[in-house]
Amino acid sequence: MITKEQVLYALGHVEEPDLKKDLVTLHMIQNIEILPNKLKFDVVLTTPACPLKGHIEHACRNAIGLFISKDIEVDINMTSRVVSTESAQLEGIKNIILVSSGKGGVGKSTVASNLALALAETGAKTGLLDADIYGPSLPIMFGLEGSRPESIQTPQGKTKILPIEKFGLKLLSIGFFTDPNQPIPWRGPMATSAIKQLFGDAHWGELDYLVVDMPPGTGDIHITVAQSYPISGAVIVTTPQHVALADAIKGIGMYQMEGINIPILGIVENMSYFTPAELPDNKYYIFGKDGGRRLSESNQVPFLGEIPLVKSIADAGDNGFPILLDADEAVAEAYKEIAGRVAQEVSILASKVV
Amino acid sequence: MITKEQVLYALGHVEEPDLKKDLVTLHMIQNIEILPNKLKFDVVLTTPACPLKGHIEHACRNAIGLFISKDIEVDINMTSRVVSTESAQLEGIKNIILVSSGKGGVGKSTVASNLALALAETGAKTGLLDADIYGPSLPIMFGLEGSRPESIQTPQGKTKILPIEKFGLKLLSIGFFTDPNQPIPWRGPMATSAIKQLFGDAHWGELDYLVVDMPPGTGDIHITVAQSYPISGAVIVTTPQHVALADAIKGIGMYQMEGINIPILGIVENMSYFTPAELPDNKYYIFGKDGGRRLSESNQVPFLGEIPLVKSIADAGDNGFPILLDADEAVAEAYKEIAGRVAQEVSILASKVV
Repeated sequence: MITKEQVLYALGHVEEPDLKKDLVTLHMIQNIEILPNKLKFDVVLTTPACPLKGHIEHACRNAIGLFISKDIEVDINMTSRVVSTESAQLEGIKNIILVSSGKGGVGKSTVASNLALALAETGAKTGLLDADIYGPSLPIMFGLEGSRPESIQTPQGKTKILPIEKFGLKLLSIGFFTDPNQPIPWRGPMATSAIKQLFGDAHWGELDYLVVDMPPGTGDIHITVAQSYPISGAVIVTTPQHVALADAIKGIGMYQMEGINIPILGIVENMSYFTPAELPDNKYYIFGKDGGRRLSESNQVPFLGEIPLVKSIADAGDNGFPILLDADEAVAEAYKEIAGRVAQEVSILASKVV
Repeated sequence: MITKEQVLYALGHVEEPDLKKDLVTLHMIQNIEILPNKLKFDVVLTTPACPLKGHIEHACRNAIGLFISKDIEVDINMTSRVVSTESAQLEGIKNIILVSSGKGGVGKSTVASNLALALAETGAKTGLLDADIYGPSLPIMFGLEGSRPESIQTPQGKTKILPIEKFGLKLLSIGFFTDPNQPIPWRGPMATSAIKQLFGDAHWGELDYLVVDMPPGTGDIHITVAQSYPISGAVIVTTPQHVALADAIKGIGMYQMEGINIPILGIVENMSYFTPAELPDNKYYIFGKDGGRRLSESNQVPFLGEIPLVKSIADAGDNGFPILLDADEAVAEAYKEIAGRVAQEVSILASKVV
């Protein structure tokens, strides 16, 4: 009969590639059960979005085969418990991820929504907060125009806003509280207090990730959010255009400022190339090639991925905002990879906190 | 023998469609020569870029045939003398046309350059002044990186900057005076004085049109230029994207402000649709359809035209800025039409000044 110690010895040779430590040291091996000719255990990853899931499972099987026996049946339950980058969390929210862009028009809201959807699809409890006070787009993108969130009373007698649930996400938008035909100029203090309500007066419940669609540019709102809440990091969205890249650098600089110090999880390049649905193998680098990648290299921040523009003649006139569920396969794949990389970066940061 | 009076009577029935008056009243008929069985005269249009040139010539022949005789040979010399919208001109510059955009990244500089090239191609004396202090692009677009304009002494003993001539244009850029690797922050007063030098301390000579590539957005520079020089009007460049259109409205609003009062010559929609060179008949409305046209309707300003994105796989990775001379036929055609419409709008405004 093999022992629990033998199992831990064997799995102590499997390294988590991102965190650069073995699974045993990382307390990722749990619930070891030893049955006759069968071995069961859980591998508790730091995120269900982990792109290395298959790789780690394979390495565990190899280690058991090498150090114990090739003849034993191994039943591995790959599971996850998202870790927080912050010791002091906002209510039950483990990680707050800001999605930012240096300028408008680069598809920041589309990226934020699809990132949230891709994270939720892996099984992570995910929320999306549309904090873009200048042009909230969540209501349109999720077909929730005119919706108003309900309120609930907490046991402590506080009134809290209840996020709307759709497509597996908890959703709140500044747009739920404003009339789209009567744009109120949300000047500094007003906007700031509105944002504070969406963060603090909402009943988000337990969340692994809260993705926040920030206003474009840099300003008061960014400073307030960065200084008031435990933020895991920021994703910067850009297009390959020169002007967009120049503004993205400003965005990176703002988060890296002293007194702000928000880690940059990485850069997403949107509209990287155009692929006509009618010519699916052709990539037209309309706005230049590899601008986002070069930006990440010169600023020493991760490059999270590129998202193509894919359209067919039929839907090309459509003004709607595509969300992952409808998206082209290549686009959906790009978002899944980006979500995996974002979750990885958060896990790496969280491992440094412990 | 027919008389000069008969010719003037006949041509008095030909209306200039834009100016809504007949050619004789507009003093457009000159140098009438009556020979045996032959009649010669000049039609002096208000711009060589007039898209109605053929139409007007045809109408003149019809009028002679109808009111005088069908049997006489008619030799019409279609010529032009560009009129100024302003009674007080800056040196010999008849019309100053500002090219503006609400936001960066919409291709304003590409449009300004190609508009200037298309005007010059019709025979109009044209200059291009790159006043985009935040990102001068003329040196790259015209292959003039590192060039420095020469200075000359005027008979009055003043030193003036001599514009560089290329592709039939007179060119000056704020970029000729700055080091591209050492971006100087051109704050308000500094930028303003730099712009004043490009307008006032340059020896432009006689120009029918000076096209000015303005900085994006709205700001001090715009107000200074609008208030200091006799401006014919402004062309607003936008893309069909929502954000770009919203900012374009701000640009229109600025020029229409009291104390500024610059006529809007019209809206150019750039990146209207994408056409792969490999599928020349397909139009992909990547950023939405007809946004620029709707903007012009709702703001009651002319719509000058749409410019497609045309790329082939081969050149799609190219970061260079295409200029008209290299451009795809559809793009070149779009610029020619736009130049014609801009010149028409200027002529209409000029006719109201006289």
